[in-house]
Amino acid sequence: MTASALPMTVPAPGLPARVRIHEVGPRDGLQNESAVVPVETKAEFVRRLAGAGLTTVEATSFVHPKWVPQLADAEQLFPMVSGLPGVRLPVLVPNGRGLDRALALGAREVAVFASATESFAKANLNRTVDEALAMFEPVVTRAVEHGLRVRGYVSMCFGDPWEGAVPLAQVAGVCRRLAEMGCDELSLGDTIGVATPGHVTALLDALGEEGVPVSRLAVHFHDTYGQALSNTLAALRHGVSVVDASAGGLGGCPYAKSATGNLATEDLVWMLDGLGIETGVDLGRLTATSVWMAEQLGRPSPSRTVRALSHKE
Amino acid sequence: MTASALPMTVPAPGLPARVRIHEVGPRDGLQNESAVVPVETKAEFVRRLAGAGLTTVEATSFVHPKWVPQLADAEQLFPMVSGLPGVRLPVLVPNGRGLDRALALGAREVAVFASATESFAKANLNRTVDEALAMFEPVVTRAVEHGLRVRGYVSMCFGDPWEGAVPLAQVAGVCRRLAEMGCDELSLGDTIGVATPGHVTALLDALGEEGVPVSRLAVHFHDTYGQALSNTLAALRHGVSVVDASAGGLGGCPYAKSATGNLATEDLVWMLDGLGIETGVDLGRLTATSVWMAEQLGRPSPSRTVRALSHKE
Repeated sequence: MTASALPMTVPAPGLPARVRIHEVGPRDGLQNESAVVPVETKAEFVRRLAGAGLTTVEATSFVHPKWVPQLADAEQLFPMVSGLPGVRLPVLVPNGRGLDRALALGAREVAVFASATESFAKANLNRTVDEALAMFEPVVTRAVEHGLRVRGYVSMCFGDPWEGAVPLAQVAGVCRRLAEMGCDELSLGDTIGVATPGHVTALLDALGEEGVPVSRLAVHFHDTYGQALSNTLAALRHGVSVVDASAGGLGGCPYAKSATGNLATEDLVWMLDGLGIETGVDLGRLTATSVWMAEQLGRPSPSRTVRALSHKE
Repeated sequence: MTASALPMTVPAPGLPARVRIHEVGPRDGLQNESAVVPVETKAEFVRRLAGAGLTTVEATSFVHPKWVPQLADAEQLFPMVSGLPGVRLPVLVPNGRGLDRALALGAREVAVFASATESFAKANLNRTVDEALAMFEPVVTRAVEHGLRVRGYVSMCFGDPWEGAVPLAQVAGVCRRLAEMGCDELSLGDTIGVATPGHVTALLDALGEEGVPVSRLAVHFHDTYGQALSNTLAALRHGVSVVDASAGGLGGCPYAKSATGNLATEDLVWMLDGLGIETGVDLGRLTATSVWMAEQLGRPSPSRTVRALSHKE
């Protein structure tokens, strides 16, 4: 059997011609790994991702090492990869101290991590939503003053484990405020993976009504219930052209109690390749990168595309 | 954490109000299991699926026992479940002998299994596509004469492991011929899982041009590359309202070389529940059924929804 391991390209009308993938594997994917990954392995991971054609790779987080020991090597890692030509390397900054560290290393893009719900703001930041936004405001302002691009993550946009359904207007309001304070991109996070396509469309409509243009939006879906790719398709139909994904589906354990697996970049690229939507990504090189990373971590990738393609090699 | 383990219902315009799920777990799901499942377990599986609200459950195949030893108990199984009220129980019949056996037991629906490609017709039936259709014609005619509904499976509709891309007109031609000989439903199979949403839409357009109405179509996607649900969404947007799925994602091994995992019924129901599309299925009871079946088979379900919901229980 000489398997044809590529989709046939058949464009669908009304979709963007090009999608920029915001690769989150090195930061969001690795941050929950309990065994610390050597910094050289992380740097090689970022280099291989760039080599596979990814143009935006979220490299690390300048969070306090006590909170996320896995990313305590941010100061060592960032200079190892910051010279990659044509690759944007955003870094997460939780607060002003994180921004100081990012600026000191010459980072050109940062991201802040906000919540659409009070429960998660309390759990993650020990603040109310308003208090968290007030904390981020001077960080974003200062980053913008330094000429940095700033991304605002908004978590729990489609459901919250404590609150259940999250009102669309509440999410749209948080997004508008982040945009107003200077975030040039907002990443809508389905942190617990409960979204479905009609919900995606309704939230994007609500954001339009709130005055947040679709050109500033990214989507960040989790595959907890297998819904990430169909939700992405709904977002593409609505004009979204920036999609977050994690190489090999790294991030959380899809089989664990708190199942929070990120959308696998390979599963996304397969769909976009089939739709004739340009990403610049070489699926074969990306898959090989995820297979290599899975070997470093000592367990198989949960990505269906990675599993299928690597078993055919 | 009191997890809200259900999607928020937000309908999307332009989709069917109701979808009939054609559950294939007991036949397509189990047929490749190497260890023979006891007939009482199979009967209990069908009963539990019906109890979860599935109204069409493909029960077994009247194939020669030498070809599919797992389904050699068709004569014992069918009478054990054929009295379930309100449940359609189609059975696969490979040929006239199979139809005889199905008729003898009082089956009211049968299915034949055709191929869109010469390579798979040769591999699966040792016939050309034309020879296979010529073999099915008297079977379908006789079934219709007996007042049975007949479903025609068409495999390799989106790609073929030997031939690569499959021309749309070739698939549409096979479907038209099956419809003309009396099949009242055609199930479009993405046997190797390579389809993407634009391809789905293009094939449905081609079928419309060939004169096959969408009301007679079902879709049968495989999750080999994680694409089954987004392809289903594309088909729903085109008016398809019958979707094949396998409880717990049974069928083939998604992690093996010949990765051919069926779309998991639970992942499908999650999306349809979220879209407000009626199926009559109780997701909790269905998930419990797949967890039970996974215990019988001695390995976990590959369905992301089953894994997520069962870990939260």
